[in-house]
Amino acid sequence: MTAPTPALPPFELPVSDLHSSVQDPSLGAVNFLNEIMQRYPHAISFAPGAPYPVFLESIDVQHYMDVFAESLKSSRHLSPAQIQRCLHQYGPAKGLINDIVARLLHRDEQLIVDAASIVITVGCQEAMLLLLRALRSDPNDQLAVVTPCYVGLIGAARLVEFDVVPIDECDSGIDLKQLRHACCEARAAGKRLKAVYVAPDHSNPSGTQMSDITRAALLDLAAELDFLIIEDNTYRFTSADESYPPLIKSLDRQHRVILLGTFAKTCTPGARVGYVVADQPIRSEDGRKRLFADELAALKTMVTVNTSPICQALIGGMLIAHEYSIRQLAQDKTRKYRKNLDCLLTALDEHLGDLPHVAWNRPNGGFFVRLRLPVPVDESLMALSAEQFGVLWTPMSHFHIDGRVSHELRLSCSYLSEQQIEEGMGRLSRFLHHLTTPLSAGMA
Amino acid sequence: MTAPTPALPPFELPVSDLHSSVQDPSLGAVNFLNEIMQRYPHAISFAPGAPYPVFLESIDVQHYMDVFAESLKSSRHLSPAQIQRCLHQYGPAKGLINDIVARLLHRDEQLIVDAASIVITVGCQEAMLLLLRALRSDPNDQLAVVTPCYVGLIGAARLVEFDVVPIDECDSGIDLKQLRHACCEARAAGKRLKAVYVAPDHSNPSGTQMSDITRAALLDLAAELDFLIIEDNTYRFTSADESYPPLIKSLDRQHRVILLGTFAKTCTPGARVGYVVADQPIRSEDGRKRLFADELAALKTMVTVNTSPICQALIGGMLIAHEYSIRQLAQDKTRKYRKNLDCLLTALDEHLGDLPHVAWNRPNGGFFVRLRLPVPVDESLMALSAEQFGVLWTPMSHFHIDGRVSHELRLSCSYLSEQQIEEGMGRLSRFLHHLTTPLSAGMA
Repeated sequence: MTAPTPALPPFELPVSDLHSSVQDPSLGAVNFLNEIMQRYPHAISFAPGAPYPVFLESIDVQHYMDVFAESLKSSRHLSPAQIQRCLHQYGPAKGLINDIVARLLHRDEQLIVDAASIVITVGCQEAMLLLLRALRSDPNDQLAVVTPCYVGLIGAARLVEFDVVPIDECDSGIDLKQLRHACCEARAAGKRLKAVYVAPDHSNPSGTQMSDITRAALLDLAAELDFLIIEDNTYRFTSADESYPPLIKSLDRQHRVILLGTFAKTCTPGARVGYVVADQPIRSEDGRKRLFADELAALKTMVTVNTSPICQALIGGMLIAHEYSIRQLAQDKTRKYRKNLDCLLTALDEHLGDLPHVAWNRPNGGFFVRLRLPVPVDESLMALSAEQFGVLWTPMSHFHIDGRVSHELRLSCSYLSEQQIEEGMGRLSRFLHHLTTPLSAGMA
Repeated sequence: MTAPTPALPPFELPVSDLHSSVQDPSLGAVNFLNEIMQRYPHAISFAPGAPYPVFLESIDVQHYMDVFAESLKSSRHLSPAQIQRCLHQYGPAKGLINDIVARLLHRDEQLIVDAASIVITVGCQEAMLLLLRALRSDPNDQLAVVTPCYVGLIGAARLVEFDVVPIDECDSGIDLKQLRHACCEARAAGKRLKAVYVAPDHSNPSGTQMSDITRAALLDLAAELDFLIIEDNTYRFTSADESYPPLIKSLDRQHRVILLGTFAKTCTPGARVGYVVADQPIRSEDGRKRLFADELAALKTMVTVNTSPICQALIGGMLIAHEYSIRQLAQDKTRKYRKNLDCLLTALDEHLGDLPHVAWNRPNGGFFVRLRLPVPVDESLMALSAEQFGVLWTPMSHFHIDGRVSHELRLSCSYLSEQQIEEGMGRLSRFLHHLTTPLSAGMA
């Protein structure tokens, strides 16, 4: 027998030694959902906002990379070896496919932006982080967000210690009176509201679409009170054609709007490619002419260096192959998600129409519906729903930055087939009838 | 003629409204190099630490993705559709190829780490950002770095406002007396030195390799004074076999070491895949068992969500195809970079041996050599070298966090052929002879 070597005292890292964002509920929310989905693999899940899986089964990566390579050959006269280097070497922090993204914004949105004002990012999430990092320069800076709000935006704000001010969502998009009040209140307190985050086309988690009037009024307010508008257009491609208000960025005559986009829902989440349009001229003392995009690209060198050129080639190839149009590229997806949303709303009418104090909104696009219950909705209710009724969803409290108790939950329809939606809604109906029936505890 | 529509006053974003990191020299340094390389495309550049381009010309992305897909099929019994979903859907924040990375660390380094303690990141850069974000919880926290230091580490520290303390490099790696002193000084000032960053195997920009004794002594000091060690092993694969000290992580009995790695230099920068091994147990009040890797993965959901599974598949396939060994996979590269380094050192002897007050170190691995001149080295000297002598390099001041004036520059040999190194050294020699000759101005 050999004597054990003397061990050093066991070392643990106290969580209190780590940055506060690590413990933030916005980060825990994602983990909670993943864990519960793994624990109940047979539950039907209205939780994920991920694309319908069948769309992802037949993407020919090599084909689209070849399309992109061919375009490099013809437009930039690169040799095969040069093309290979372009795909595999470190590339410019701003990106490789900026001109393609500029072209699609023109084609789909009649928006004219210079390719130099675009940064290609690792998904929309990196764009959010870069943007919030750049904008939050002082502890007194504030960021206004429509609440409930996309959890990734809240998390990015936590990472850079950006003080977030919730502004209520309303039917027309955002409560502008509240926003004006928050802005003035900030000033009176020696603080400064620097930007507001909105997802005007079918926001996550509400599906709400901002009205034309509110878009214009928001721009006016930004000019009057001197703040920036962060416009997230992730779900815009799901919008019904007949009710298609312009991007706020299209109305922006003053470079007040920073536009965020992603190819995760329209092309593939696997590429992790998004973008930010930041065409604001920078005023500095050194006199060099720069755009906000240049500053974001400089920050990006310290976050991810550059977005994988292989992934950019895949997305670039997909866009070229579909004539620089997301509308064209994603038309099957747009149709599918609209159909799923209709299916979900119809099933809600059928299954929950008789329940008192249960209500939901009726978005005309996006992946999500807000459902209101007569009881507070928390994670223990979600666990009960998963365990006893085999149906999953997301508590709305996850999307409120102030951790308020909510009676709402989010239903997502993107990940499911129509059959699954129908079956899942049956299960949800049984759960909610159980919940709202007196003496229900004994009947579970 | 139509009257022009009244324009809003032009809006500019004052740079003073942006976070201080935007203006940091560490970010400007990268831009400066890119710009000067574009301005002098025919100059021979000893500046980039990028891989030798020829290695990137024949990577068959589809082949390696197929290898990875085949392994998913045989190990996890996934159907073709499930494999496609795995490559294209959002994936776990921690990563897809963690088990493969754990296997290669065992194979190449005899290091046993649980796959659960690994996070796959968007290059090593994201690993640095996540780690520094997690560790910097208080304005009084300090990070010690060997100086001169990799600029990406400094930049990431700026982004999270981590106070950085420079510790001089010495022949054995790091001046431990200075580190001890900095740690005690921090305490006396009510601050806390939480971690030290080292790249013990041929650091960027010095090429220095830390001695066995210093590795062990650094671990002892970390245990004594309660700090963490961040070990960056980017250039370890270039080390000469005969002089191969263990990873500090291999000596770590107490979970004091966080290991950072990248596949950019060994596989392809285009995939943007790196990793962090963070096996520290977390002590928290909620009693849940977690590793530091879990906290880093949670932060990652707010930076890039997850690392592209397509890129992970490419790297995973390359590793599987080379029996889970970077040593095997990169043997041609290791040989090439060692040969280039020999070639650079020989050319330095031949061309600069007669110059007084010019000296350089002799690393036994890595991409870099430090060259000392009799004059201060700044960006204007670099511009002169590029313009009049057609040769580029990097001022060492870029790698000093305190912006100190340096008489040194960094020469990188990775990006060039031996012929280019020879020719470039001739040009550098003419420049330096010009510089150090009296009345030289008239002879240019």
